[in-house]
Amino acid sequence: MDLYFSPLACSMATRIALAEAAAEATFIEVDPRTKRLPDGTDFRAVNPLGLVPVLRTDAGELLFENAAILQYVADRFPAAGLAPADPWQRARLQQWLNFIASEVHRGLFTILLDPKAPAAAKEHAIAKGESRLAYLDAHLAGREFLLDRFSVADAYLCVVLGWSRATSLDLGKWPNLKAYASRLRKRASIARALAVENPLYLAEQARHAAA
Amino acid sequence: MDLYFSPLACSMATRIALAEAAAEATFIEVDPRTKRLPDGTDFRAVNPLGLVPVLRTDAGELLFENAAILQYVADRFPAAGLAPADPWQRARLQQWLNFIASEVHRGLFTILLDPKAPAAAKEHAIAKGESRLAYLDAHLAGREFLLDRFSVADAYLCVVLGWSRATSLDLGKWPNLKAYASRLRKRASIARALAVENPLYLAEQARHAAA
Repeated sequence: MDLYFSPLACSMATRIALAEAAAEATFIEVDPRTKRLPDGTDFRAVNPLGLVPVLRTDAGELLFENAAILQYVADRFPAAGLAPADPWQRARLQQWLNFIASEVHRGLFTILLDPKAPAAAKEHAIAKGESRLAYLDAHLAGREFLLDRFSVADAYLCVVLGWSRATSLDLGKWPNLKAYASRLRKRASIARALAVENPLYLAEQARHAAA
Repeated sequence: MDLYFSPLACSMATRIALAEAAAEATFIEVDPRTKRLPDGTDFRAVNPLGLVPVLRTDAGELLFENAAILQYVADRFPAAGLAPADPWQRARLQQWLNFIASEVHRGLFTILLDPKAPAAAKEHAIAKGESRLAYLDAHLAGREFLLDRFSVADAYLCVVLGWSRATSLDLGKWPNLKAYASRLRKRASIARALAVENPLYLAEQARHAAA
């Protein structure tokens, strides 16, 4: 299995899921600005939109989109319990994955982190996005995870919340959410993923600064 | 089963899925501006964020988020074949549902259709969104559906593409996409859904104009 990733991008959720499952995979780094792969070729030959993650299965098939890849990994390694097998709980997982992907990741952070997004677009995204963070904060009151146990939705949300450090958003406004993110960052699989990807992110930034 | 919907909103995809499955359901209209239900109560007691669709199952449980609800309906009525049972094809369906939800619906049309979104936010959304429509156009060359047969992802995409009429986007730039949307609008389940929801949409607009 190959995972195309960029350091600290949402692809890190799949790295976390693979670590939870103690699964082997080859990680292939994509430079998010140049779209170059380590061998110098263009990642857009793999995904025309240039978006990570992309998963290549052992059968050589490509799968796109974080919510799909996370469920694929969870189903490939069911013993890790990363996605509920019960159909109703699976529907609930899909609800959270879709909420994180569309409302929090795409609706809020993609715009805040886009250097080309105009200030008015960022202000508009924050005005809507804060209600989404408040909604998550209310859900997480007295809860350890989004579902009853750790799932790929927590891996995804933890990565997305980590991006707040690079924005003007202060998670302190949502104490349950902030405590949740802090707890998760200490989880072994997530701490290890950060220990691998933080230095890669700093190296990427240094490369861009030198270019 | 109850479906909270607003006329021509993404909830129409679930109406289409229910029609494909010849399933009974109670449709409860939500005014998207006032968030009022037909009995005068506030929909935010059902969904604090005020977003449709919300599905209430026969067991009384609430499910949120279109991609989750569409798969729930597909799995509740498997004979309709609205979602592949094969795990790999299901992963591919989830890929398309997530792509439509995050990149096309939330990333592009939610902003274009939001009267409060500043012009700069709309221009930024279009600059990114056009590449997503071009990507769909390329995928649909020589294909009838997103997967090998009609699925809930087609129901969703057809509804989202219909919104282009209320924006400055001209689908004619993407001929495969435009032909796909035209074909789908003639499909019985979709034509019936439009015949129900178009008049409700016009009534909603007239109510807002009178208010």
